[in-house]
Amino acid sequence: MALVNEHFLKLPNNYLFADIAKKVNAFKVTHPKANVISMGIGDVTQPLCPAVIEAMHKATDEMAAQSSFRGYGPEQGYDFLRYAILKNDFAPRGIHLDLDEIFVNDGAKSDTGNIQELIRWDNSIGVTDPIYPVYIDSNVMIGRAGVQEGGKWSNVVYMPCTAENGFVPQIPEDQHVDVIYLCYPNNPTGTVISKQELKKWVNYALKNDTLIFYDAAYEAYITDPDIPHSIYEIKGAKKCAIEFHSYSKTAGFTGVRCGYTVVPKELSASTLDGGRIPLNPLWNRRQCTKFNGTSYISQRAAEAIYSPKGKEQVRRTIGYYMDNAHQILSTLKGLGFQAYGGENAPYIWMKVPQGSDSWKFFQDLLYGAHVVCTPGVGFGPSGEGYVRFTAFGSKEQTEEALARIEKWV
Amino acid sequence: MALVNEHFLKLPNNYLFADIAKKVNAFKVTHPKANVISMGIGDVTQPLCPAVIEAMHKATDEMAAQSSFRGYGPEQGYDFLRYAILKNDFAPRGIHLDLDEIFVNDGAKSDTGNIQELIRWDNSIGVTDPIYPVYIDSNVMIGRAGVQEGGKWSNVVYMPCTAENGFVPQIPEDQHVDVIYLCYPNNPTGTVISKQELKKWVNYALKNDTLIFYDAAYEAYITDPDIPHSIYEIKGAKKCAIEFHSYSKTAGFTGVRCGYTVVPKELSASTLDGGRIPLNPLWNRRQCTKFNGTSYISQRAAEAIYSPKGKEQVRRTIGYYMDNAHQILSTLKGLGFQAYGGENAPYIWMKVPQGSDSWKFFQDLLYGAHVVCTPGVGFGPSGEGYVRFTAFGSKEQTEEALARIEKWV
Repeated sequence: MALVNEHFLKLPNNYLFADIAKKVNAFKVTHPKANVISMGIGDVTQPLCPAVIEAMHKATDEMAAQSSFRGYGPEQGYDFLRYAILKNDFAPRGIHLDLDEIFVNDGAKSDTGNIQELIRWDNSIGVTDPIYPVYIDSNVMIGRAGVQEGGKWSNVVYMPCTAENGFVPQIPEDQHVDVIYLCYPNNPTGTVISKQELKKWVNYALKNDTLIFYDAAYEAYITDPDIPHSIYEIKGAKKCAIEFHSYSKTAGFTGVRCGYTVVPKELSASTLDGGRIPLNPLWNRRQCTKFNGTSYISQRAAEAIYSPKGKEQVRRTIGYYMDNAHQILSTLKGLGFQAYGGENAPYIWMKVPQGSDSWKFFQDLLYGAHVVCTPGVGFGPSGEGYVRFTAFGSKEQTEEALARIEKWV
Repeated sequence: MALVNEHFLKLPNNYLFADIAKKVNAFKVTHPKANVISMGIGDVTQPLCPAVIEAMHKATDEMAAQSSFRGYGPEQGYDFLRYAILKNDFAPRGIHLDLDEIFVNDGAKSDTGNIQELIRWDNSIGVTDPIYPVYIDSNVMIGRAGVQEGGKWSNVVYMPCTAENGFVPQIPEDQHVDVIYLCYPNNPTGTVISKQELKKWVNYALKNDTLIFYDAAYEAYITDPDIPHSIYEIKGAKKCAIEFHSYSKTAGFTGVRCGYTVVPKELSASTLDGGRIPLNPLWNRRQCTKFNGTSYISQRAAEAIYSPKGKEQVRRTIGYYMDNAHQILSTLKGLGFQAYGGENAPYIWMKVPQGSDSWKFFQDLLYGAHVVCTPGVGFGPSGEGYVRFTAFGSKEQTEEALARIEKWV
């Protein structure tokens, strides 16, 4: 008799973005003439840059001729892309990585979800709160998160990030957390971590033999030169951290699907009897068994963003979104709201007015200004009392939305 | 302290195709002038068909303009492709499926590996032997396969498929196997299953509440009108089977990455206390959490194979490979070998001469004819004494390889 994996049944039935869509649809049905502007979902809107388009056409043409046709690629990704990554994303920051420490994937969501397969089912996990839901949900599915009680999972250590602590999570000095998820620049708060603070995490991890899963999906949005783009800028991080990168937000690849994961060869985890097992070959085995590489066309597209033209074009699109971010931040602040992020990240995290809460403000904004934001509580208990705005809309729509908010307040 | 998932350590260190590559390289080093022809790895060699290339260019151009740009697609795949699948792969065979029973993916390897997440870690599994290694390895990684002893896993029920039983696996009537993997047309043996035989499996599954994972990756190669293309051609199969499809071999998409999985809404599994849980929403939850859809360009490419032109062009390429298959089969038989498959599948499974074994024959063929085959024992204990030839080479290379084999024997 096939028995179901009952851990799945612990997951709440509601999905944040499905709930939002339902409420937005209900509004549209009763207000058919309203022109609703979404600043909710973190999806890009600007077209792929010309260098990428050119590379995709070229790769497609290669697939049309027998002499240049490509079948299965390496599960770890093509070397042309892995070299470009080493040369452009790491070497300029003084980080030396080997080619086989880079694993190209079909986007960061897959690997941030799958990476938990490498660790024992009963390891404890720690997350900053609020947080990208995939980190916790992927652990719930294997039983590692325990059971949900009052919005929290019993085997998860939550590290609140709120205006009160300046969005700096407190290191759990008094307890040993086996695995910690960090995401900087942060989704959803849009805040960043300084080198000094990140150093504390690396030191904690080295001291406690903790594994850090570091999500750097938004690093391309960093403008402040003192903010680290990679955890490997910190000494010792190769011994304790796996890092996730994505082209989704860097180059608008949410529909193209390409990213990569770094698993340093120095990194190891413990066996029950105290042996040390390097994780790089384990991840390689995982990928070779359950993944067959991402599309050749997508990998050529990713390579193109590292060309001189590609770099310039990608920078321009990021600038476009960051102009939106600055507009949103300054408008909200000008209206007297407490707003955060938006300086090194495409997200603005806003405290809702006294007496309101995440969902109530979401609803008020939708009905009052026909603008969609994301209720912060959807990202975890410490997100209650906040909402998230994204800067990924067009300039025109963003300006229109802000004008409506100004009028509505 | 982060503890490693020690189940990974049970996996043997050698990978079949890596071992082959090593031996082939050793040969090439000592025989630099030899022109080695590979009939080993099951990868396609012919270019994508013109209808697919056209669709990919068009999709790329859409991504270049703001008005037609696509960001995140649905995790389940775009409706245009899911409709094309329903209309072309199932409706003509009298199979009615709903749109939300189709989950588009980045190739069958991912989903045949990931599907085991839906079931309890201690369910027993059954496999036909020889078998595609992903089925077992993905279960080893979660601890479900037990430990390896003498080439077999302790918690896996092996159902031998050999010349002696006509490659028809015996149904384990005397025991309850919770989950069974079937692959037809079969990789590696190239043999098929009749409707009558498949009916027995469905009946066994319904009687024992067994879940069948049915891999139909090679169904496009079926030429015999009596052989089922889908397990859902059998009454009751929607209550007990998940089916995997792939465009890799159908349309040469090994580098493009697209396939799909069917999870019928009628299908359910049991909880420990006897409740029934439908698996369709669980798989949906899994995909929404750990997958973000495959590339938009790849999905448009897949859609194009269902157009009248696409169908015709794909059929021609399959015919090309099947001509190779027939050549290989008849040549080997003509040389007095016992050879199987190759009539409804691109694989030929050959018994090695008395006194030889899988690896010895592989080595003899490499050194004697400079031709690479795959040792059958790499696919499981019942593969010992066989080798696999693939029909995916070019016509010229296949003919040259066969001429060399004729000369060598």
